[in-house]
Amino acid sequence: MGTLEGHLLPGIGFLIYSVYYSVLTSLALLRGEKALQHPLLPRKLRGHRLFQQVSYEAMMKVVVPTFGIIGEYFYPLGVNRLQMIDWTDPRRPFIFKDNWQHVTMFGFFILSGVVDMVSQSHLPRWGVKLERAAEALAFYVLVLLMATHIENKNSLEIRVHLLLMLPSFLFAVVLTVEVWIPNNPSIWLLKSWLGLVLSNWMMQLCEMYVPPTGQPWRADNPTDLAFLTIFFCWHLALAAGVVIAIYGLCRLWHCYYSSWTKTPGAKYQRCPMESSEELEKLKAEALAQDGGV
Amino acid sequence: MGTLEGHLLPGIGFLIYSVYYSVLTSLALLRGEKALQHPLLPRKLRGHRLFQQVSYEAMMKVVVPTFGIIGEYFYPLGVNRLQMIDWTDPRRPFIFKDNWQHVTMFGFFILSGVVDMVSQSHLPRWGVKLERAAEALAFYVLVLLMATHIENKNSLEIRVHLLLMLPSFLFAVVLTVEVWIPNNPSIWLLKSWLGLVLSNWMMQLCEMYVPPTGQPWRADNPTDLAFLTIFFCWHLALAAGVVIAIYGLCRLWHCYYSSWTKTPGAKYQRCPMESSEELEKLKAEALAQDGGV
Amino acid sequence: MGTLEGHLLPGIGFLIYSVYYSVLTSLALLRGEKALQHPLLPRKLRGHRLFQQVSYEAMMKVVVPTFGIIGEYFYPLGVNRLQMIDWTDPRRPFIFKDNWQHVTMFGFFILSGVVDMVSQSHLPRWGVKLERAAEALAFYVLVLLMATHIENKNSLEIRVHLLLMLPSFLFAVVLTVEVWIPNNPSIWLLKSWLGLVLSNWMMQLCEMYVPPTGQPWRADNPTDLAFLTIFFCWHLALAAGVVIAIYGLCRLWHCYYSSWTKTPGAKYQRCPMESSEELEKLKAEALAQDGGV
Amino acid sequence: MGTLEGHLLPGIGFLIYSVYYSVLTSLALLRGEKALQHPLLPRKLRGHRLFQQVSYEAMMKVVVPTFGIIGEYFYPLGVNRLQMIDWTDPRRPFIFKDNWQHVTMFGFFILSGVVDMVSQSHLPRWGVKLERAAEALAFYVLVLLMATHIENKNSLEIRVHLLLMLPSFLFAVVLTVEVWIPNNPSIWLLKSWLGLVLSNWMMQLCEMYVPPTGQPWRADNPTDLAFLTIFFCWHLALAAGVVIAIYGLCRLWHCYYSSWTKTPGAKYQRCPMESSEELEKLKAEALAQDGGV
Repeated sequence: MGTLEGHLLPGIGFLIYSVYYSVLTSLALLRGEKALQHPLLPRKLRGHRLFQQVSYEAMMKVVVPTFGIIGEYFYPLGVNRLQMIDWTDPRRPFIFKDNWQHVTMFGFFILSGVVDMVSQSHLPRWGVKLERAAEALAFYVLVLLMATHIENKNSLEIRVHLLLMLPSFLFAVVLTVEVWIPNNPSIWLLKSWLGLVLSNWMMQLCEMYVPPTGQPWRADNPTDLAFLTIFFCWHLALAAGVVIAIYGLCRLWHCYYSSWTKTPGAKYQRCPMESSEELEKLKAEALAQDGGV
Repeated sequence: MGTLEGHLLPGIGFLIYSVYYSVLTSLALLRGEKALQHPLLPRKLRGHRLFQQVSYEAMMKVVVPTFGIIGEYFYPLGVNRLQMIDWTDPRRPFIFKDNWQHVTMFGFFILSGVVDMVSQSHLPRWGVKLERAAEALAFYVLVLLMATHIENKNSLEIRVHLLLMLPSFLFAVVLTVEVWIPNNPSIWLLKSWLGLVLSNWMMQLCEMYVPPTGQPWRADNPTDLAFLTIFFCWHLALAAGVVIAIYGLCRLWHCYYSSWTKTPGAKYQRCPMESSEELEKLKAEALAQDGGV
Repeated sequence: MGTLEGHLLPGIGFLIYSVYYSVLTSLALLRGEKALQHPLLPRKLRGHRLFQQVSYEAMMKVVVPTFGIIGEYFYPLGVNRLQMIDWTDPRRPFIFKDNWQHVTMFGFFILSGVVDMVSQSHLPRWGVKLERAAEALAFYVLVLLMATHIENKNSLEIRVHLLLMLPSFLFAVVLTVEVWIPNNPSIWLLKSWLGLVLSNWMMQLCEMYVPPTGQPWRADNPTDLAFLTIFFCWHLALAAGVVIAIYGLCRLWHCYYSSWTKTPGAKYQRCPMESSEELEKLKAEALAQDGGV
Repeated sequence: MGTLEGHLLPGIGFLIYSVYYSVLTSLALLRGEKALQHPLLPRKLRGHRLFQQVSYEAMMKVVVPTFGIIGEYFYPLGVNRLQMIDWTDPRRPFIFKDNWQHVTMFGFFILSGVVDMVSQSHLPRWGVKLERAAEALAFYVLVLLMATHIENKNSLEIRVHLLLMLPSFLFAVVLTVEVWIPNNPSIWLLKSWLGLVLSNWMMQLCEMYVPPTGQPWRADNPTDLAFLTIFFCWHLALAAGVVIAIYGLCRLWHCYYSSWTKTPGAKYQRCPMESSEELEKLKAEALAQDGGV
């Protein structure tokens, strides 16, 4: 599905996930939590006794790629690509290469979702490491398949996909590090940012199918290739801005929500500064320095 | 020996070793051991006073590659490749390049086996580090020689061997890390998985000599190359499945064996959940969250 | 601005910053401080209540690249390059590729300066990590854009820029490490040195526009390319020499200044050796060894 | 000096240094020392008051490369290459590229020697880190210049030098790690081994100028290139063997020497096993296991 729809589905999936993860991170930082709390599905939606604890995250990791796989095989309607070898041809060639690549990528994200479910229900001790490892594997597979995907493509597509592989690989490396060093707030923020870079870039890819200037990108033009990298750099800053915006909104919500639940009588209490006494100390130091120098 | 047999011998060797290592890891995890226990050969089989402590592992590392070396030189029967320079030619050219490469690879695994034996018998303190270093060296040599091996080959062989070098190199890196950070259960699991990926991929190589469709792989066909990478990714998931299966079987054995040896009167006692009280806690938390949200 | 001026501005900016950072590092080492103290702007220069704490460093990171950006768009005078797409052309091509690349690089340094200001004023706890991350991002962007910048250039320009990317990338990596391992004096020294290598090499680039021999460098001459690398190596040693010189000057200043402020009566007191008792111990050991051997 | 002599001088230099370092490491391991003791020159040889503490190592690092530099400029006798630009040519071309590359390499080793001298005499606290950093720099420069050195050479020379750059780069990385993690016995052993690999490979290069078969190596022959990598792997094992041999000899010397100095009455006392009680424990365990299985 080298089409707009084929890039839009995973792009929106990554975007929702990244925003969700950023919100989780922001709340964990604001509440001073030691580990990320993944909200669980309400009890009535979890049918089986087998999966007693299913997080929204795991559910989404299973559902979105499943739609992706169905789309790869049966979209547009009336098509059936669910075969790997063309048995009618005497040379027995492989067929639907791109679709099987995409299905494999989607499959590893489903695998990661299943690992999440199993680990959250049954493996409280080992679970977190396994979840991170399965996620990292999904992204490593993404990079490996993307490397094959760009063979025999034009230089524009190669460039676009290389710039997609870069944050994916870094994301996979960070997840691998998290297997051994879990619960590091700096790593949460790094993951939020990398995830947003990745999903924003997927959106950029979608934009390239419907360019606002009405003119297609030209693969044979070095200037177009150069601007691709420039836009990628802007997306880096944009993603940082989105993380900051999400953190800001979460802080507002956190202040009002906590003031409302904790002290119902004092509604208009001012939200306390994050570390006002430290600020006071710093101000005092600055004054001293001003006087000394 | 760029033949089916030449790939089958090391492939089966790696496979047995990886399964064996996965079993050791599973049992160590189930028993909560701090270090892997390598079972030793029974006393009567260890002849010399020099090698008082010989593990099955070290024995296999010496025996299997020895057969490999003999095969390189003298297989098929009647052949003798035990020379390096063709002295009859006035230009004194080197001959049997591939065989000497394979012999060198096998040789380093024998070296690793010898280091295991010596260290297990004589060097209780330094031994483990030396064993890991010798193993890592064997895999680094494998990668280095493989990089030379694929020169002047077709793109299919290059791809196949690159995908073999990837897990080998990662395995070597993990072994190098283990020199400084020994006895890390996550690393044991990672090694089990990487070892199974490596040996499964060797089996895939063997399969490519006798393809089930009856049609050979075509080096000039990009689709075949793409599917090679897809299959490699599937092997990644397959190897994870094998690790889980081995762990499950070991757990069954561990439960029955321990209930049989410890409490002979109460044979049908239920195998205790790994960490039932933690599960209970989590369930209680989930209930609380359901109520709260 | 692939001109002398275009390289001179960032070159001098980096140079001033590197010397400044080396002085800070030297003083911190001499005073035995645990963290680098960034001197703040005097109170009267800080107008807004929003930025109560502005370091010289942050100010410079904002001011110098701003001039750079203005230069990119409007230098030489009378030119206006502040557009990205040529709307007069029916093909809607991108224009001023190089300028937008340079503007993006400058922009990320301004961003780093703004992060410094905000973090120094409002985020005493998280700030240092964010500052390092924003700096690292600026250098990563520098490397990424430089990689695009050298496409379709001659081999001399590629070589020159590769040798610029090497210290930039290492600098970015060191800054990334500093996010997790802050306040390591060895890393301060490493950063001082890498920064000086980078800015010296920028100066070398400027020199190549006005070669002292009067003969231009020839891109088609392998000898010229080889000498470029040789000169880069000499710059490595030169930068080390500059770090040592700055440390020496700071030590002189530190000794006189501290003896003058602390003991105004005893002006000509000798500056104490850094660790004279340890030296004495070493001397004693050496004597013992001389006697023993 | 792309000649036999040009490779023999640094080769022998590295070899002596590596053997010396292996001896130091072995003795430190046998004596259970926490840090490597670098023997100092006897007092009468150290003339200046400036350099009170000069190790043999630092002396050698200065003397051997000095001969190298003199050789580069004035060998064979009657030649003077001490100029960089041919001023007689109107194009002002650079000349003696290879010699200046070699001189730069030698120069950084002299620099490392000077840093050793200064740090051993004056900087007991910071010294060790600076010494390692200067050594690492020398090897990084070696790799960087070697990368330029092999441009426009034939594939045999490229291969030979790549296999020289590999251990050099690893050596530099290990030295860099040692700046932050000093006094790690595993790293001492790794350095001994890498140093011997490097110097053995330099010897191999010398051998290639005078091949024992009487036939030169052929750059256009893939078999020759393949055997080069095979021989490199053999050197890896050979270097490991040399480290073990040196350790064994040092152990013999250590046992006799210590029994002679400590207990002059009991000359024929048996050298105690390294950790006999641990061995006993292991034997007991093995017996228990034999009985149990």
